[in-house]
Amino acid sequence: MNLFLLEPHELSSAGSAQLADHRAAHLLQVLKVDTGDTVRIGLLDGPVGTGTVMSTSDGTVTLRCDFASAVPPRPAVDLLLALPRPKVLRRLWAQLAALGVGRIMLTNAARVERNYFDTHVLTPACYGPLLVEGLQQARDTRLPVVSIHRRFTALVEDELDGLSGDGARRLVAQPGAPTTVATCIRQHPAARVLLAVGPEGGWNDHEVERLTAHGFTPVGMGPRTLRSDTACISLLTLVHAALGADRVQ
Amino acid sequence: MNLFLLEPHELSSAGSAQLADHRAAHLLQVLKVDTGDTVRIGLLDGPVGTGTVMSTSDGTVTLRCDFASAVPPRPAVDLLLALPRPKVLRRLWAQLAALGVGRIMLTNAARVERNYFDTHVLTPACYGPLLVEGLQQARDTRLPVVSIHRRFTALVEDELDGLSGDGARRLVAQPGAPTTVATCIRQHPAARVLLAVGPEGGWNDHEVERLTAHGFTPVGMGPRTLRSDTACISLLTLVHAALGADRVQ
Repeated sequence: MNLFLLEPHELSSAGSAQLADHRAAHLLQVLKVDTGDTVRIGLLDGPVGTGTVMSTSDGTVTLRCDFASAVPPRPAVDLLLALPRPKVLRRLWAQLAALGVGRIMLTNAARVERNYFDTHVLTPACYGPLLVEGLQQARDTRLPVVSIHRRFTALVEDELDGLSGDGARRLVAQPGAPTTVATCIRQHPAARVLLAVGPEGGWNDHEVERLTAHGFTPVGMGPRTLRSDTACISLLTLVHAALGADRVQ
Repeated sequence: MNLFLLEPHELSSAGSAQLADHRAAHLLQVLKVDTGDTVRIGLLDGPVGTGTVMSTSDGTVTLRCDFASAVPPRPAVDLLLALPRPKVLRRLWAQLAALGVGRIMLTNAARVERNYFDTHVLTPACYGPLLVEGLQQARDTRLPVVSIHRRFTALVEDELDGLSGDGARRLVAQPGAPTTVATCIRQHPAARVLLAVGPEGGWNDHEVERLTAHGFTPVGMGPRTLRSDTACISLLTLVHAALGADRVQ
């Protein structure tokens, strides 16, 4: 854990937090903290800061919390992802949060199996802790906003503008497309990117047509076809690099 | 499966191959091939080509194999990776082969647990099929060469030159390093890259010193610290993009 995320309700009015869960266990057993030690903390969707260990006892750690004034910016990439197999999605949650995604829109598509929507991997009780794990890994506090869309057409035609906002550059990953992410963003600089990644087997022709009709530019990754989870990680990396988010701040 | 890989011994002298394993099952049950259909094939470490279904019976498929004359180039990136946890490595094999790696050198490091070396995930019987799975996903035929090194110092001081060849640009991933992969390769263009990725928790100071003394330049990925498997995928993506391998061939 590179940062300990706290929820607002965990902070006392005096600015301290008492931890007794796996975070306390990590502080005591892995980092072996003692009174006076400091650790990197963050407030969920709020600033990062420093926690000073005030006391430890019986598996409980009390931290005095000092936060910076500025809140980290929301990651500049949103992801529109055809719902992957539950096992794959389960592995992706933490990785997506670690790479940095403002919003994750999971959508149906012709090549998505309907029973994928019934999995508990789509419940906040499952993905919430995995997203937090990814944020703590990456030292971020900005929780990706997750929404689930059973109707691809309604999402693309009616809902997308409201969800992703104006001005985002829209890219759709297409095996074999000749334009790279870097070229595309260099030619049309943008502050935000909305990236669409299809299911295993790809979007069908109708879906590609709908996406391009709604402003998505096909981008390729060269001659290698990747599994959708590997493709997600690769493409998010390329988009962040093209936006300059790989510069050390 | 985007390509069916064959081993040289599976080819008859007349240029046909009889498949009766999971590849035949995939051809029959997923692709539902019939006599006369063609599928994309490749010869392990050889050319890609076309397989024409000559007959199907009882779970067996016989293909006539026509291969291109050219063999795909070996991927231009080699990976020096501190041995990850067995569970993580198991998931990485196919992804590394799919992304394209010429050689995978797995090494010990101060923050690698010794018992990681005892896992069956390091046996060719385990990783061979996973690498082939990744090649078939990516439509490549060039099997990464795997070597396992229990002594970091011996590897870096004595063996590395022989393994990775001269002239490869050497990069070591370092959280917080100010230079990006793209900048580094733009400043010193190279035909091959040797990328070193550390363990969870990072290389220790001695290891970083040994690596930099042997020509490795630290490269960063921005302010976010990634898990080592996510970092591998991201960094390989960035190196391939910087080498121009993301252009469609």
